[in-house]
Amino acid sequence: MTAIAQERIWTAALLVIGDEILSGRTQDANLAYIAKWLQVQGIRLKEARVVIDDMAAIGAAVTALSAAYDYVFTTGGIGPTHDDITVDAIAAALGVAVVVHPRAREILAGYYGDKLTDARLRMARVPEGAELIDNPRTMAPGIRIGNIFIMAGVPVITQGMLASLDGKLEGGAPVLSRSVGAWTQESQAAATLLAVEKANPGVQIGSYPFWRQGKTGANFVLRATDEAQLASVAAALIAALAEVGIEAVDGEI
Amino acid sequence: MTAIAQERIWTAALLVIGDEILSGRTQDANLAYIAKWLQVQGIRLKEARVVIDDMAAIGAAVTALSAAYDYVFTTGGIGPTHDDITVDAIAAALGVAVVVHPRAREILAGYYGDKLTDARLRMARVPEGAELIDNPRTMAPGIRIGNIFIMAGVPVITQGMLASLDGKLEGGAPVLSRSVGAWTQESQAAATLLAVEKANPGVQIGSYPFWRQGKTGANFVLRATDEAQLASVAAALIAALAEVGIEAVDGEI
Repeated sequence: MTAIAQERIWTAALLVIGDEILSGRTQDANLAYIAKWLQVQGIRLKEARVVIDDMAAIGAAVTALSAAYDYVFTTGGIGPTHDDITVDAIAAALGVAVVVHPRAREILAGYYGDKLTDARLRMARVPEGAELIDNPRTMAPGIRIGNIFIMAGVPVITQGMLASLDGKLEGGAPVLSRSVGAWTQESQAAATLLAVEKANPGVQIGSYPFWRQGKTGANFVLRATDEAQLASVAAALIAALAEVGIEAVDGEI
Repeated sequence: MTAIAQERIWTAALLVIGDEILSGRTQDANLAYIAKWLQVQGIRLKEARVVIDDMAAIGAAVTALSAAYDYVFTTGGIGPTHDDITVDAIAAALGVAVVVHPRAREILAGYYGDKLTDARLRMARVPEGAELIDNPRTMAPGIRIGNIFIMAGVPVITQGMLASLDGKLEGGAPVLSRSVGAWTQESQAAATLLAVEKANPGVQIGSYPFWRQGKTGANFVLRATDEAQLASVAAALIAALAEVGIEAVDGEI
């Protein structure tokens, strides 16, 4: 990867918690959404991990990611059932107690009334010292402690929690992207891609082949924080590809 | 998680390599497929990681996962372009050279003939000492070195490579699953799930809520290696849920 800028780069990691993902039962739908949301916040998703519902596995991952990146987001394991152990695992990893958050209890009591059972009260438990993240969709809130953001596994709920964090996290310049597409084998374009990337520090080029209608094509995705630079490098790439006989278009095929 | 058996458990990790996943551009489609394929081989997927196209990031992840699990599968970054650095990163992490595999060169030469450019020849490069994994879909083979299986990022190609490994990896008893579904809030069932799981060592129960047609429901997924035990515990769970007023059915809702 090319080094992109002199300015401060803000980084994040995602920790997906859940046997249902690692058994193949459920297709994760949070990673791509969170990745795009982070880009708008000017934060780069640099790593994601998926771990089983296990105290030690969750604790080790959250400890490593929290130290390595500016922000860590977790999804999954904050519901009312016995396999929802994310809060306990993160509290243990941080060496703090698990407490019932008074405001979270209030929210749940307002919703469940006298049906606020022990199981439901589990959803008000937080690592000591945590703040809540609004959950506009259902009741049980998300949780922020330090640089760790603990969110639901159900995508629509996670998306609501992210919406309530919109614009509130410190970040840098958003990463923008622009595609150039061509009906070519990517191997044909390889030398050109490398030369154009090398000639344009701050722009990173990825190559993504596809096969459609019995034909081979590739999209070349340029990423940078400067829109004008992206446009001029896209034009330069199209010109350089034409020189080696590849007719490319501005935009994704 | 409940400890499941006395017998040897075979474990695997998946390392997904690619900026396109972490930018949200591409939705990963390999994890769920590989997870299910591994279950049939009697191998449990215990962790997955997604890292950027960066030598150090790939190297660190593959080193950690290769030490922690019986098998490591990687997807992505084995094409012909400059951002395809998986082979180089893994060779560097293992401290071995990158060499052109004679059989891989032969395969590519048979396909490309005198158009076997340097870029295309990149796809014949392997860490020294590696074996090839057949690729029945396109030409460029996958690579096995030690307990590391290096595969393509494009799902249809990965699936072909897995098919060529079918039944060839040492594994244990496949993990089977069986679902019990109910139109209930999962919090209502929480205590029952916990009691039934505790009473049945070897069976693990996950709870997966959903909202459909304006109603709340949950599927409870039982996992174990013994089919008869799964059936009897599913029946026990349905009976126990009935005792707390929840009408559950055998099978997923």
